[in-house]
Amino acid sequence: MSNLTIDELKESVYTANIALVQAGLVVLTWGNASAVDRERGVVAIKPSGVAYDVLTPKDIVLVSLETGELLPGETMRASSDTPTHVHLYQQWPEIGGIAHTHSRNATSWAQACREIPCYGTTHADTFYGPVPLARPLTSEEIDAGYELNTGVLIVEHFRENHLDPDHVPGIILSFHAPFAWGKTAAKAVEHAIVLEEVAGLALRTEQINAQAATTPQSILDKHFRRKHGADAYYGQPK
Amino acid sequence: MSNLTIDELKESVYTANIALVQAGLVVLTWGNASAVDRERGVVAIKPSGVAYDVLTPKDIVLVSLETGELLPGETMRASSDTPTHVHLYQQWPEIGGIAHTHSRNATSWAQACREIPCYGTTHADTFYGPVPLARPLTSEEIDAGYELNTGVLIVEHFRENHLDPDHVPGIILSFHAPFAWGKTAAKAVEHAIVLEEVAGLALRTEQINAQAATTPQSILDKHFRRKHGADAYYGQPK
Amino acid sequence: MSNLTIDELKESVYTANIALVQAGLVVLTWGNASAVDRERGVVAIKPSGVAYDVLTPKDIVLVSLETGELLPGETMRASSDTPTHVHLYQQWPEIGGIAHTHSRNATSWAQACREIPCYGTTHADTFYGPVPLARPLTSEEIDAGYELNTGVLIVEHFRENHLDPDHVPGIILSFHAPFAWGKTAAKAVEHAIVLEEVAGLALRTEQINAQAATTPQSILDKHFRRKHGADAYYGQPK
Amino acid sequence: MSNLTIDELKESVYTANIALVQAGLVVLTWGNASAVDRERGVVAIKPSGVAYDVLTPKDIVLVSLETGELLPGETMRASSDTPTHVHLYQQWPEIGGIAHTHSRNATSWAQACREIPCYGTTHADTFYGPVPLARPLTSEEIDAGYELNTGVLIVEHFRENHLDPDHVPGIILSFHAPFAWGKTAAKAVEHAIVLEEVAGLALRTEQINAQAATTPQSILDKHFRRKHGADAYYGQPK
Repeated sequence: MSNLTIDELKESVYTANIALVQAGLVVLTWGNASAVDRERGVVAIKPSGVAYDVLTPKDIVLVSLETGELLPGETMRASSDTPTHVHLYQQWPEIGGIAHTHSRNATSWAQACREIPCYGTTHADTFYGPVPLARPLTSEEIDAGYELNTGVLIVEHFRENHLDPDHVPGIILSFHAPFAWGKTAAKAVEHAIVLEEVAGLALRTEQINAQAATTPQSILDKHFRRKHGADAYYGQPK
Repeated sequence: MSNLTIDELKESVYTANIALVQAGLVVLTWGNASAVDRERGVVAIKPSGVAYDVLTPKDIVLVSLETGELLPGETMRASSDTPTHVHLYQQWPEIGGIAHTHSRNATSWAQACREIPCYGTTHADTFYGPVPLARPLTSEEIDAGYELNTGVLIVEHFRENHLDPDHVPGIILSFHAPFAWGKTAAKAVEHAIVLEEVAGLALRTEQINAQAATTPQSILDKHFRRKHGADAYYGQPK
Repeated sequence: MSNLTIDELKESVYTANIALVQAGLVVLTWGNASAVDRERGVVAIKPSGVAYDVLTPKDIVLVSLETGELLPGETMRASSDTPTHVHLYQQWPEIGGIAHTHSRNATSWAQACREIPCYGTTHADTFYGPVPLARPLTSEEIDAGYELNTGVLIVEHFRENHLDPDHVPGIILSFHAPFAWGKTAAKAVEHAIVLEEVAGLALRTEQINAQAATTPQSILDKHFRRKHGADAYYGQPK
Repeated sequence: MSNLTIDELKESVYTANIALVQAGLVVLTWGNASAVDRERGVVAIKPSGVAYDVLTPKDIVLVSLETGELLPGETMRASSDTPTHVHLYQQWPEIGGIAHTHSRNATSWAQACREIPCYGTTHADTFYGPVPLARPLTSEEIDAGYELNTGVLIVEHFRENHLDPDHVPGIILSFHAPFAWGKTAAKAVEHAIVLEEVAGLALRTEQINAQAATTPQSILDKHFRRKHGADAYYGQPK
């Protein structure tokens, strides 16, 4: 996103945060979105605990991509989840935006400590396989740095399970809630919406059929490739 | 719909697509509606992957009813589901409009791979019998033409099960989502709304009574005939 | 309601029908509300199958309380459910308005063919005991006059079960949907809203506790009497 | 709240009542919010049974903190739940506002007579432990003063279970509905919103995993302390 000015970067993060609210993913102040400008080494993120109806683009906080610290001149606290965001940006050069919510269905799966099975094409269009579940942090990890270690845990989970953040643009955290990401803050919001929708579909699918089967591999492959990679044909040419 | 100009045809398809969103059946770009003009041999359909809030009537794409190809002068890609729509129009001369969504409850039944039983009069007023479930496509069918073969499968399912598309104006596809149709694009949207509502009612009916019985034949017949055929008396005289 | 002019009567019925839509109880044209003017011997009711967004107060249809027939000069068909409404007004002189919907939770209980147990004070404030369930009509009753016999069945159910329509202002019909009533059309709408809410609460109550107990008699009595009868103290003095 | 004028106190209570409706926690007139001015010895509360769409700030009723009686000059009846509110204010000097609703998910848990387990961080951020369930009142308690004894029961439940109203800002009442409280009426509304959200999350968590575990103590402690006490770091500095 190096083609954006700092004001445009802040505006894009403001717009993404408001989009989370408008999509019904956020109650009270339970959510935040961010974006990174890798050329400038800057992450722009929502300030902590500020109500969405008084939030303005200039309230968006800038922190260093390298250290996670507030840039000089910043006066508001960044989101308490900032260390998670910064670690993901540091570890995954392919992502440009992150969205965190406590959206109702995705959070219910997180609390139930189950990954979300891929029950159909709505899921397969965006997530190639189940939405993964990260294990709970240990007491030691919590004490040593809760939010940073949340980021560490996510990256480790993807590495250990050979998952690609481009193909699986989100995760749910045990006893907590979802994180989603994408090339831009707007894409991260879109993936947070998809995650919430497929979480609701999966819950109802199991209620309708307790022995529901997951999507056959051939359909999974077809739907993911309709939208991703060299043979994608969904949408208008870019 | 031969009494419509091309502009009016596009307008009716635009209106139907927006009506899907307003009815809450569509999230992001997950839906499309179309209409056919049989005299002109033209199908009008939503462009692929275009956001509803920027869609305009002139964006609606025209394709040939005979070949499914873009008409000369069209510059946008048609919906990726166009081959499904075109095949249904080719095989079923009695329909004039089609709507496809990933609406929440209907898609959950599709993912659960169960037909939707007829549990009451709300269902029987529009669907004479269960909402049918099409089997999954095979790997070979997917590779040979996913969207076209989806249409072929729907038509085959109706023929093999002796179903009449006038009496059963919709279907759910295993691991995927619903399609609905009608005499016009507006009617297809109405039937997509009914399908979503009866899917939600059926889910809750089974939650309230795991041994729920389906509607007795006498009530099923009465309600369907109140609205269909020579003895219909619901609504105002046409 | 003899203190209303005919225009005011129509206006009140129009307002009640729109209130059903605004409360989220009605999808498409699946609902109707009516009121009776006993001095004039007139029932005012929604026309059949007319969309709510084009409905106007002057479209409200007048029929005879005695015969159920359209009054001279009426040109639109009355709701197909008119014989049910008229029979209830004929048999129950204490009611002044009726509302029929296919609201989501109440219709689910109707389809499940279970009465709605009284699980709490929200229910007891309006319904003194379970929301009753009427049996399905027989084939013979359907053939002999479906809508009239629906009304006959409701009145019989109340008489045989010693229920008072003032204390139990609604019912659900097997395989069909709810009816509610009250002193006015506005009160009938309010009771339809309560019926839908308690239907949803009861569904979730059983999901949370499959052995949920119904409300103790002492709490049931207390809550009903807070709002009804000589010792009522809820609300402002009339 | 002694820094507010009486008009400002009424305005804050009016705003809190409207906020309950806007948050979707209240149907019809099923809810009320209040605030206390301890210096003046006054409680401001919603009038009984008044529709929210005609409610104005000057309709808010003032009663004595000491006796619960209407202040001289008041002409409208206070909420029928006033004795519950007044007793809580009398017994708990640390609270400044109270909100009572029949919100859908919280009321379902109340009707199911189960406390709401703490299944995740959304819950732990506001409630340190389960949302407690008060036992049903006995017939004798109901006859001797239903609403006052509801308040007595809540206070006893907290004392007997060594709960702190600052750490557990709400309760659900068997067969009834939730109460929430906080430092101000606005905070009480916020806690009523949290209670409703965690009630819905907990219901779905159990549907997804019937053997769901409650939140480990280390995560519970971390999340509560992020927002409460000397080491809190969520939000902007006060």
